[in-house]
Amino acid sequence: MTELYDVAAIGNAIVDVIAPADDQFLADQGLVKGSMALIDDARALYLYDQMAAGIEASGGSAANTVAGIASLGGRAAYIGKVANDQLGDVFAHDISAIGVAFDVPRLADGAPTARCLINVTPDGQRTMSTFLGASNQLTVADVSPDLVAAAKILYLEGYLFDPIEARRAFAKATAIARTHGRQIALTLSDSFVVERHRAALLGFIETEVDILFANAAEVCALFETQDIDAAIAGLNGKVAIAAVTRSAHGSSLLAGGAVTHIEASPVEKVVDTTGAGDQYAAGVLFGLARGRSISQCGALGSLAAAEVISHYGPRPFVSLQTLAAKAGL
Amino acid sequence: MTELYDVAAIGNAIVDVIAPADDQFLADQGLVKGSMALIDDARALYLYDQMAAGIEASGGSAANTVAGIASLGGRAAYIGKVANDQLGDVFAHDISAIGVAFDVPRLADGAPTARCLINVTPDGQRTMSTFLGASNQLTVADVSPDLVAAAKILYLEGYLFDPIEARRAFAKATAIARTHGRQIALTLSDSFVVERHRAALLGFIETEVDILFANAAEVCALFETQDIDAAIAGLNGKVAIAAVTRSAHGSSLLAGGAVTHIEASPVEKVVDTTGAGDQYAAGVLFGLARGRSISQCGALGSLAAAEVISHYGPRPFVSLQTLAAKAGL
Repeated sequence: MTELYDVAAIGNAIVDVIAPADDQFLADQGLVKGSMALIDDARALYLYDQMAAGIEASGGSAANTVAGIASLGGRAAYIGKVANDQLGDVFAHDISAIGVAFDVPRLADGAPTARCLINVTPDGQRTMSTFLGASNQLTVADVSPDLVAAAKILYLEGYLFDPIEARRAFAKATAIARTHGRQIALTLSDSFVVERHRAALLGFIETEVDILFANAAEVCALFETQDIDAAIAGLNGKVAIAAVTRSAHGSSLLAGGAVTHIEASPVEKVVDTTGAGDQYAAGVLFGLARGRSISQCGALGSLAAAEVISHYGPRPFVSLQTLAAKAGL
Repeated sequence: MTELYDVAAIGNAIVDVIAPADDQFLADQGLVKGSMALIDDARALYLYDQMAAGIEASGGSAANTVAGIASLGGRAAYIGKVANDQLGDVFAHDISAIGVAFDVPRLADGAPTARCLINVTPDGQRTMSTFLGASNQLTVADVSPDLVAAAKILYLEGYLFDPIEARRAFAKATAIARTHGRQIALTLSDSFVVERHRAALLGFIETEVDILFANAAEVCALFETQDIDAAIAGLNGKVAIAAVTRSAHGSSLLAGGAVTHIEASPVEKVVDTTGAGDQYAAGVLFGLARGRSISQCGALGSLAAAEVISHYGPRPFVSLQTLAAKAGL
């Protein structure tokens, strides 16, 4: 099988609704700053009604990552489910327009396209409330064996540990990837996801995962510790590579038993951290797929993350390939 | 009748789709840089398919203006038509969330909510292709007499000179405004609109308009001249106040036979000029409704325009009231 793609990703296909908010709003609405909470349709309608005016932009964690890989000049494919509605049109347009292969059939009759209500506080922190809608209807049948087989790296979004059918889709995809000698990457996505599925995630990581992405809270939740260095050490031997983001403190890349510290790229003003981890993963995955050194992979991740937090919206506004070239990467 | 509103506006209710493009793209697609072209649904689908990934944001010229007035701390109302679809939800949410009164019934069965495909070139210039959809179905019945009567200023969007039914809505609204001794403001919107309806616009201006907004190209088109000063002079006696924007060169405010030059507010980087004229109008209209001096009105217009061109999207991201207070306005 020819390698057509650097990365094929499976995730929740979501359109983001992003608006400014203050800390009092988060408190009034019972929102935990920086987290992602799942909400039902009634809560989504209520919360949207309370939110400030904002913008809409295609999102979804793994979808943001493959968009970033495409922006870096990489070849990527995406598996996720949207409905046959206007927000589905937006999602499908945006991911195709940036050059990512995406041909999962729309959900015909059922829930509308998923949306994530994102309240951004003046410190740039994003707090997410997700109505999964159609994204939750991803099935095993949506995983194209040819597409997964044709990608150097299969990238899986931890959020999909919630719906059981999506976990079956993961199992199908990982089996195909293994058969074709591909690498398997996973992001833990959110510390609440880790709390809900710790045992299943640990088993999956040990069995299937070559490359793990997490932020500090997520990796600490995985090992039920407050000690980030201990948590990173806990991954040694379980995965070939672990990339742990530490927000403004950069990231730690574990590879071959050694931990490399990567500085965060400087940003004039942090406007909206939505997509920071997703774009970091894009840089690292692109680097790994292209055989770059660990420190170069980390630098690409930092560069991509810095671009996306400097503006509203979870995907790059400018060509990351151009930015990387300017930075000598 | 109590004055409940500073401004009531009538316009095309539109959701913007904003994406980066280069000059070659404009040439390939036959788009005239800086202009607004009306397109049908087939062309809208085709052009969207060709466009880069972008963001969606509520737009519509007069809707942007009343959103700006609300952001300045003013009270505003809006009359425009959206469909009962997801983009209609976005439009209705955003204008209500910023505090603008909006209760025009949705178009039940028919065209979808209007969208404006906006290609933004690296120079910050915006080129617009508008599919009018449901916005084109605004009728006389949608003009609430109580709402128009309760606003100090009625603000009309020149784009609505295209559909004959909307012109009838204008006639109804202006009659109500006159009866209640309100002021009537009009924006010329676009030089092609002026070309299409020059005679009708000139007649309407002389008969009904107290406050006219235009950019240099529009006012020159109105008088079929290349001489902007002659064009501005031509408005003297026809309207009480004329505000003519001259992009980076600021604006000229004609009032009582005298022309006051207003400097543009400095902007670090012009990202996207979408909504610049709309926010300028917001500042001037808010100032006029609150009895500010002509130069203060102009300064408020420049301040509002500077905010909106510093980011993607046609409406302010931050409170214009706070910005104005900081600037001593």
